[in-house]
Amino acid sequence: MRKALSRKLAIYPGTFDPVTNGHIDIIERCSKLFSQVIVAILINTDKAPLFSVDERLTMLRSVTWKRFRNITLDTFDGLLVDYAMRKKASAIVRGIRAISDYEYELQMALMNRRLEPRIETVFMMPAEAYSYVSSKLVREIFMLGGSVKGLVPVVVEQKLRDKRAL
Amino acid sequence: MRKALSRKLAIYPGTFDPVTNGHIDIIERCSKLFSQVIVAILINTDKAPLFSVDERLTMLRSVTWKRFRNITLDTFDGLLVDYAMRKKASAIVRGIRAISDYEYELQMALMNRRLEPRIETVFMMPAEAYSYVSSKLVREIFMLGGSVKGLVPVVVEQKLRDKRAL
Amino acid sequence: MRKALSRKLAIYPGTFDPVTNGHIDIIERCSKLFSQVIVAILINTDKAPLFSVDERLTMLRSVTWKRFRNITLDTFDGLLVDYAMRKKASAIVRGIRAISDYEYELQMALMNRRLEPRIETVFMMPAEAYSYVSSKLVREIFMLGGSVKGLVPVVVEQKLRDKRAL
Amino acid sequence: MRKALSRKLAIYPGTFDPVTNGHIDIIERCSKLFSQVIVAILINTDKAPLFSVDERLTMLRSVTWKRFRNITLDTFDGLLVDYAMRKKASAIVRGIRAISDYEYELQMALMNRRLEPRIETVFMMPAEAYSYVSSKLVREIFMLGGSVKGLVPVVVEQKLRDKRAL
Amino acid sequence: MRKALSRKLAIYPGTFDPVTNGHIDIIERCSKLFSQVIVAILINTDKAPLFSVDERLTMLRSVTWKRFRNITLDTFDGLLVDYAMRKKASAIVRGIRAISDYEYELQMALMNRRLEPRIETVFMMPAEAYSYVSSKLVREIFMLGGSVKGLVPVVVEQKLRDKRAL
Amino acid sequence: MRKALSRKLAIYPGTFDPVTNGHIDIIERCSKLFSQVIVAILINTDKAPLFSVDERLTMLRSVTWKRFRNITLDTFDGLLVDYAMRKKASAIVRGIRAISDYEYELQMALMNRRLEPRIETVFMMPAEAYSYVSSKLVREIFMLGGSVKGLVPVVVEQKLRDKRAL
Repeated sequence: MRKALSRKLAIYPGTFDPVTNGHIDIIERCSKLFSQVIVAILINTDKAPLFSVDERLTMLRSVTWKRFRNITLDTFDGLLVDYAMRKKASAIVRGIRAISDYEYELQMALMNRRLEPRIETVFMMPAEAYSYVSSKLVREIFMLGGSVKGLVPVVVEQKLRDKRAL
Repeated sequence: MRKALSRKLAIYPGTFDPVTNGHIDIIERCSKLFSQVIVAILINTDKAPLFSVDERLTMLRSVTWKRFRNITLDTFDGLLVDYAMRKKASAIVRGIRAISDYEYELQMALMNRRLEPRIETVFMMPAEAYSYVSSKLVREIFMLGGSVKGLVPVVVEQKLRDKRAL
Repeated sequence: MRKALSRKLAIYPGTFDPVTNGHIDIIERCSKLFSQVIVAILINTDKAPLFSVDERLTMLRSVTWKRFRNITLDTFDGLLVDYAMRKKASAIVRGIRAISDYEYELQMALMNRRLEPRIETVFMMPAEAYSYVSSKLVREIFMLGGSVKGLVPVVVEQKLRDKRAL
Repeated sequence: MRKALSRKLAIYPGTFDPVTNGHIDIIERCSKLFSQVIVAILINTDKAPLFSVDERLTMLRSVTWKRFRNITLDTFDGLLVDYAMRKKASAIVRGIRAISDYEYELQMALMNRRLEPRIETVFMMPAEAYSYVSSKLVREIFMLGGSVKGLVPVVVEQKLRDKRAL
Repeated sequence: MRKALSRKLAIYPGTFDPVTNGHIDIIERCSKLFSQVIVAILINTDKAPLFSVDERLTMLRSVTWKRFRNITLDTFDGLLVDYAMRKKASAIVRGIRAISDYEYELQMALMNRRLEPRIETVFMMPAEAYSYVSSKLVREIFMLGGSVKGLVPVVVEQKLRDKRAL
Repeated sequence: MRKALSRKLAIYPGTFDPVTNGHIDIIERCSKLFSQVIVAILINTDKAPLFSVDERLTMLRSVTWKRFRNITLDTFDGLLVDYAMRKKASAIVRGIRAISDYEYELQMALMNRRLEPRIETVFMMPAEAYSYVSSKLVREIFMLGGSVKGLVPVVVEQKLRDKRAL
């Protein structure tokens, strides 16, 4: 019955630099819809991140720990679909905030389907309060000295304050 | 364990006037992702359909019968979310072909979430070969005397020819 | 000094069939930005409205009365820019919910500017909670027996219930 | 050498109810790019047009006559690609004003390619001054008593005045 | 009555590297709609600009000087809404050229509203002749040796020629 | 009769780093629609390409050689419209995959028309199987160790394998 079980596993991939309340909103929705969800941090060696992979993992753990029983955390590099196949996932979940997002996401999903037709991409919609919240915007506001209260979990707010104090 | 089971039921609603190969593509993807899927024909008394609800149900049955074990067919009227709640569904599935589709779908999904937050809308993507196939386009081509071969199942092609012969 | 004064008058036109909380959100924003605002109901004789112009005016009056000091109500037919010129307005205000909205609005604004270059169109954004609320959606939900609580003012909810009781 | 010649024929289809300056802008561009262009009026028996097919043909003739040597006028019904094949055309030309236009046009072009792969659809862009001018907008402004001067050729302006006088 | 006065101040922010005729078109429209407008150059220390902040200020001054009585120039860094609050502005004005522009602008406006709800963002539309003119495109054409005549004020053309001569 | 001949020459410009099956699909369509087509590689000295201009030219030659009689290859730098004028072209061809593509393309086309009104830009649509294939995506998949089989010609696949072996 391996197939039946694997059918219920979804991957929610991202850079999560840092995790936002919009991400957590999607994680919560996934956790209700799928039996098992892996939140998978992409290790992108090209870009200089604000937070290290370890810091991102720690922040994600502190906000998902005990709150969602069927969520596990992981990191990956290489092709997303290869990772998803190794994990025997049936779906990749993408949160879509805006139309322009969606077009890029659709192209990636078509490409991923071509690379691996057994993995389905499903799109989910965050609460409209988070429709404009992205990690990039959070980083920009932080850089300009603005408050990100309400956009990110408290633990991320604290970590950002620590970074600023340095 | 009722909750756990109901978590796996998805509704794929539509008018299916007539069912196209694009719909069947989405039905197949749903059938792999969810434990149970109800393909639900909206009874829209306002518009004059090409096919009656009974004809649409018959065509859908002939193309899903035996092919998908976890698909059932149904009809509904009234609010989609009320129907989904009565069926104890966890998700509404919408196939999205194009960007303009998506914006309308997103507004409907936000509204449905407001009417009933327990039902999640997930978006799935048909194969790109069906990205432009809609029931409306099929009806238009049929009206103008064109061939809809490859756009709809053979049984629908035959039914359309019967309609033309009248 | 007539010119200086007229520079502060804005027109917020619409069918308001019925007025929604999204409209009221925009009216409130206009009322803060402009010295004087006319909320102007378009008398469209072609379409069969849900509410008569008188009913719409009554509902708008009950929700703006005493709440906004610099808002007046009016009705108009014919070209919007002709009406705006007669009122010596400097701006037409349009609320934009979504991208697809925006493209149509942009075409109308370009056309209105061509018909009358002295009237400027400005676009304002409702609170994201109302990003999907339109009169059309409110009418549809009402027709299907759903609740529009929170989407429209209480007075509109009551009027809709009265209509249903008939 | 029939094939070589037919390669240069393009069809510019539309309802042209009435022809606008935006249409003429595209006709002029086509006339420079292709050896031969047929401006083809779609006979759409469903909709109640403002002008009869004969009136539309007369107006088109008066604005293209002598001005473009390689333009001919025609009418057609049925499928556009069937008409294009009968005419041995190599291309269908579509003017695109806006993004929302484009998405619909792209779906039609994909469908037309599927119905007849030998006919290519090419998209051309009118001058930005005409980016918002459509037959529909012209009809609306006319109905509301506004001036369409500069949006349509003088002969169309005159015909609209005649209609109003009736 | 300070509040009443402050209600009429708008900020038109940008990098203006360099100012284009599209910017000036928006400045002129703002100057008619608001009592007072501050054109505010964002000091972005991250990016290597083509012109220094001083050069940009000089060019802006030479094109707005005496032409608009109610326009003042300024520079700012940090969060736009913090700057707007210090200036007691009621509105931020953004010119929107295209749909893709608009989506980004809408996300920024939602974020700015969240950071400071007392500042409203209003969107204005440049003349269609400037719908494709951006500072970025001007810089690119200049780099490739093309003429930017008609896209920028004469003073900017001259400054660009000076840069090229170096 | 020089003008008549030049009327049939089209330029298909790009970086082709590397050429994809989507590019070849457009080249084939151009080759049927125009008498003569120049596939022109933009020499962009700013960006670090994956393949040198010579390598790109070699790959393009091997896939177009003998297959299309009316295609020639070239390289250019500077403004595209200046190059097109020197070649006495009448049209620039752009393939459009997606809506977001299209908006950027439309802005470039409007700018190019302003720089040189005698050159027309026409948009063509690749087969839907290539709607998501871009050189950028091909490079990304290659970098992550994925297979680009079916997305690019065999010769490009081989060249990519050679690069990886280094």
